[in-house]
Amino acid sequence: MSKSTVAVDLKILAGRAARAARSLALAETSVKNLALATLAKALRSRARELLAASERDLAEAKRANGPLHILDRLLLTESRLADLIESVTRVQALLDPVGLTEDEKILPNGLQVCRLRIPLGLIAFICEARPSATVEAGALAIKSGNGLLIKAGKEMAEVSALLAEIFAAALTTVGLDSAAVTLLPSVTHDDLKELLTLVESIDLVIPRGGEKLIRFVSENSRIPVLKHFKGVCHLYVDKGADLGMAEELAINGKTNRPSTCNSLEALLVHQSEAATFLPPLGLRLELLGVRLKVDPAAAAFLPNAEPAGLEDWGCEFLNLTLAVKVVPDYAAALDHIARYGSNHTEVIATRNPGRAEHFLRTVEAGCVMVNASSRLNDGGCLGLGAEIGISTTRLQAYGPMGLRELTTTRFIVTGQGHLRT
Amino acid sequence: MSKSTVAVDLKILAGRAARAARSLALAETSVKNLALATLAKALRSRARELLAASERDLAEAKRANGPLHILDRLLLTESRLADLIESVTRVQALLDPVGLTEDEKILPNGLQVCRLRIPLGLIAFICEARPSATVEAGALAIKSGNGLLIKAGKEMAEVSALLAEIFAAALTTVGLDSAAVTLLPSVTHDDLKELLTLVESIDLVIPRGGEKLIRFVSENSRIPVLKHFKGVCHLYVDKGADLGMAEELAINGKTNRPSTCNSLEALLVHQSEAATFLPPLGLRLELLGVRLKVDPAAAAFLPNAEPAGLEDWGCEFLNLTLAVKVVPDYAAALDHIARYGSNHTEVIATRNPGRAEHFLRTVEAGCVMVNASSRLNDGGCLGLGAEIGISTTRLQAYGPMGLRELTTTRFIVTGQGHLRT
Repeated sequence: MSKSTVAVDLKILAGRAARAARSLALAETSVKNLALATLAKALRSRARELLAASERDLAEAKRANGPLHILDRLLLTESRLADLIESVTRVQALLDPVGLTEDEKILPNGLQVCRLRIPLGLIAFICEARPSATVEAGALAIKSGNGLLIKAGKEMAEVSALLAEIFAAALTTVGLDSAAVTLLPSVTHDDLKELLTLVESIDLVIPRGGEKLIRFVSENSRIPVLKHFKGVCHLYVDKGADLGMAEELAINGKTNRPSTCNSLEALLVHQSEAATFLPPLGLRLELLGVRLKVDPAAAAFLPNAEPAGLEDWGCEFLNLTLAVKVVPDYAAALDHIARYGSNHTEVIATRNPGRAEHFLRTVEAGCVMVNASSRLNDGGCLGLGAEIGISTTRLQAYGPMGLRELTTTRFIVTGQGHLRT
Repeated sequence: MSKSTVAVDLKILAGRAARAARSLALAETSVKNLALATLAKALRSRARELLAASERDLAEAKRANGPLHILDRLLLTESRLADLIESVTRVQALLDPVGLTEDEKILPNGLQVCRLRIPLGLIAFICEARPSATVEAGALAIKSGNGLLIKAGKEMAEVSALLAEIFAAALTTVGLDSAAVTLLPSVTHDDLKELLTLVESIDLVIPRGGEKLIRFVSENSRIPVLKHFKGVCHLYVDKGADLGMAEELAINGKTNRPSTCNSLEALLVHQSEAATFLPPLGLRLELLGVRLKVDPAAAAFLPNAEPAGLEDWGCEFLNLTLAVKVVPDYAAALDHIARYGSNHTEVIATRNPGRAEHFLRTVEAGCVMVNASSRLNDGGCLGLGAEIGISTTRLQAYGPMGLRELTTTRFIVTGQGHLRT
């Protein structure tokens, strides 16, 4: 197939998806919910096929020497699939934001003004090895009335092909246009560039994957991009913090699922707590296989650790590596986070209410936490039901993006012949 | 000055403005309000200078044969300045959205989650001959805690220089960094391109001006752009509409201030009303100097009108020209609007509640109106106090953008040692 043929095909597919999105935008909640119920049922009844497809994808990725965090993300296990089905069911149960009216008011001159919540339109979801994210994105798109054009990584080709069938069946079963969720077939680098110029059809691009993919998309897109850059999440252990709690936050943040963006990459410890806090934590982390990279002050309490290099601060390790630094005071922790943070998730462990409040109000990140694990920065864990990603830019959405972040409002105005004077 | 020197200067200016924006983001409401009061006072006390500067700008634009709608937008009259001062005072009186918490909830596991409203950061405001818009943008930026980097058109050079002084004084008087509102000195085309790549400092670009400027900005920006493309606003006069009211809506929509984006460009009339509605309206419009471009069906009732060409549908005339078409039914009006509308403002004159509701819910535009003049699609008229522009894209804001649209929320989370399982 020549390049130009593919480009035309993409344009046609995007146009078809945009038209399907316009009709999905007007679909009744009950119809969208039924599509989601059908989707959940199909994921359950075709679980064996999905797991087998995932095994084949994984085997291929291993043959290609894919990095460990990709292999981890790629794999659909029985328990992950169960979680995923539950997540689709949770999305089904969520309140449909579309069609809600907000900020209703009658102005002094009698003009009635309110905002009507509407979908964004057609979203291009560009991901690498993320079968779970793909399903969640599709479910959220259906519920929020948005079309979704999915370009999944070739690493998940087998699962993608199956998901394309499952989504199409779920939509057509309830009388919706199956093009509303379109999984694109294998797309080259040049095709992707072409896709990112289709401003007439696509309203928003959401890339999910490594920093390289996200940079490529940002730099080549003519369509607005919701960026989900790297997560370089810090835990700062304050003077007087509950050190037992802080230890659990550090261990959970680093080891719960190190390949994810909301895992801890660096630990900052107030100097007055370092001697008590670091040695037992170091021991436990060592037993859990965590490699520590430490600054000279922390090295005094972590004799087995390697010295951190300059490149380790602000690094998203995505594996069992943790940078550790002892800071002289709270202000130094804030400075470090401002310099090396990635606007993703920042945590303070503290017993001081003033510093807790100050941290929440001033630290620049989509999610700022007190005495909670960074791993909880997730649409599901924060009560959004599911998420399509975690935005680290401030436009349209900041932090986890759920249903509401996939909608906007238009002004609807009713007068009785009101004029502008 | 060599090109690279200018580029470096722009980068330095933007970096300085970004730092000032970070401190403005944390300023108390009372301090921001005092800055606005100082601004209003200065606009009042320096009115004579401003009007004189505007006269000089206008004279220069006339010498350069600037188009009529630019000349109109350029001019600051005494009454426009009074409106502007009132608008600054209105912004001062508005509730400060920054620091408000929303959606507070305690999840079943005890985790406290809420959203904290925060500014967007540093906004680049790129406009042509818009002195009023520049002042309103600055006032909204101060109140919403955002930095503003203003690149105003060279047509308003004299007014710009004065405004730069006035803004700087208002900020420094209350102890804020004057760089938070930076009016850039004369900037070339190449400099503007450079500015649009400063992703490290600038969070959002808002262009205000003609379609050409907005396209240039959209196509060259690496920073997200809130687009305010042309306003091709339609009024559809439904079967059974109150024709007296509809006539006033048509006249107000077209003639109140034809150079603005919320003016009517096309009138669609249900065939059953055309014979009654069009002849007297045509007469009044003619007396007001409006040039009509009509389809063959409308021509029967408007014998003096010119035939409309294909290019007249979807055209933003920005002057006293109105396209008129007779449509067979409501569906044909919807089709016409879907094809030629610009997602800006669409109006129906109707007495039928079902069609009113249907129009509000399904017509694709940032502002959809029933029985009200399109000219009322304006932040001030819709109760937002003031506006920084009217967005025709759906990301972050759709329709008029006021204070809230210049902010976002971050998640703030408080736990008692909550972990991810």
